[in-house]
Amino acid sequence: MDEKRYPVVSSPRDPRFLTLRSLQTHQGRSRTKLFIIEGIRHLARAVEHCAPIESVFLDPSVLSNPFGQKLARRLRQHGVPGFRLSHELYRELTLATEPQGIGAVLRQRWLPLEQVRAARSSLWLAVESIESPGNLGTIIRTAEAAGVSGIFILNPNCDPCDPATVRATMGSLFSQKLVRCSAMEFNRWAKSNAVSVVASSPTGMMDYKSLSYRFPAALVVGSEKHGLSDQLLEVANFVVRIPMHGGCDSLNAAVAAGVLLFEITGQRKEFAGS
Amino acid sequence: MDEKRYPVVSSPRDPRFLTLRSLQTHQGRSRTKLFIIEGIRHLARAVEHCAPIESVFLDPSVLSNPFGQKLARRLRQHGVPGFRLSHELYRELTLATEPQGIGAVLRQRWLPLEQVRAARSSLWLAVESIESPGNLGTIIRTAEAAGVSGIFILNPNCDPCDPATVRATMGSLFSQKLVRCSAMEFNRWAKSNAVSVVASSPTGMMDYKSLSYRFPAALVVGSEKHGLSDQLLEVANFVVRIPMHGGCDSLNAAVAAGVLLFEITGQRKEFAGS
Repeated sequence: MDEKRYPVVSSPRDPRFLTLRSLQTHQGRSRTKLFIIEGIRHLARAVEHCAPIESVFLDPSVLSNPFGQKLARRLRQHGVPGFRLSHELYRELTLATEPQGIGAVLRQRWLPLEQVRAARSSLWLAVESIESPGNLGTIIRTAEAAGVSGIFILNPNCDPCDPATVRATMGSLFSQKLVRCSAMEFNRWAKSNAVSVVASSPTGMMDYKSLSYRFPAALVVGSEKHGLSDQLLEVANFVVRIPMHGGCDSLNAAVAAGVLLFEITGQRKEFAGS
Repeated sequence: MDEKRYPVVSSPRDPRFLTLRSLQTHQGRSRTKLFIIEGIRHLARAVEHCAPIESVFLDPSVLSNPFGQKLARRLRQHGVPGFRLSHELYRELTLATEPQGIGAVLRQRWLPLEQVRAARSSLWLAVESIESPGNLGTIIRTAEAAGVSGIFILNPNCDPCDPATVRATMGSLFSQKLVRCSAMEFNRWAKSNAVSVVASSPTGMMDYKSLSYRFPAALVVGSEKHGLSDQLLEVANFVVRIPMHGGCDSLNAAVAAGVLLFEITGQRKEFAGS
């Protein structure tokens, strides 16, 4: 296996390992603007979307999948730096129950707000705050599947590059336009781009299915526990409600985002077809 | 606080604590047909739905919420047995990051298949296999919100009474008709009750939005990794597809269930209104 030529890192005090460890923290990621991905699927999708790969790390004792081996070889041949971690160090790093023995350090890619233009039938997602990293990842995965044009992150504590978030995106992170800005900047952007802000709340007056989403739209999603802030509910052009049975007053945030996003894209397809 | 009169359990070898510990395992739950719930919301909903509460356990040092205290008092006054756990033992038991200091042991309630009748416009959910307990809980929560009539569990390893599942249901477990049976028994039930089985798969020929769900329906959901088994795909009356953008070939199982269930209930409301 070609990637055997990568140097071996086996000391937990090796600076390369310490860098990987630091990227598991929000602070480490903020400082360096780097993050970690892991697993063949994620790495393959990163390559597919030309994500900026800084380095590769492997555990050759585990990397038995031929496609994974080929991927590692290809990256090495393209001059991507890398190293082999001892089995123990790789184990310490991974979130996977069955690690595949390949991962990478990527540069974060954020689009400046002023470069974001909304096309006529575009659909956007804005995340005000999601506490669970896994939930945020599932929301990003759902947003890609629904075909959103990009995702606004309105909260500095909300980190799509958290390892647990990245894991839950299932590789959907690399195809997304990601924008970090404040709620106020987002609102200004939406107004100046004629994008209507759609919020969902149990107090919404309108059934989410009764609205015709023929306009450029941005769906805003809020915290699992507290929903959207009053500030965002006030600036929203439409506050819709997902009607619920039983004693339910809310859905899981990712499920709610899925129901709303697929309603919007589904409706638009019907308009286009009619 | 009245519940102070409950006896104190502070030894990790006390049989009452050992019972609680055993209910954290699948084996313990299968043997006793009991399970644990935790937190004020869950307990309040269990009471609301007359779930069979066997006993209550408290950590009075943490139970500061007045509603939670009132609930504990009410249960004690109604003769529900209970005990107070030492702070350490409660900590050992709880899954919550901020425990509320109240939980209960409940008897599992499964409806025998032969007692399940499908009304004319009923909607059912059948879970073939879901690996993640949290995901299963989110699916059950989603199913309640969508107003399903009941949930079939087709896999003996799939346990809605797992503590992580119960936690993710957000209290939706108690209002549900739960039925455990094999895929073959479910299929026979669906046929004899004129319930159409709807499956979702990336290979489905029909867009999920193009089907009119005016018939009694049961949505089947399969494993996060492998989807539905060929056996279930073959017996399904309809195999629909959720169209996806980007490189996505799948959604999170709970998100997919939400998109499909809310499409069905939303359509039915439109029929009823038109």
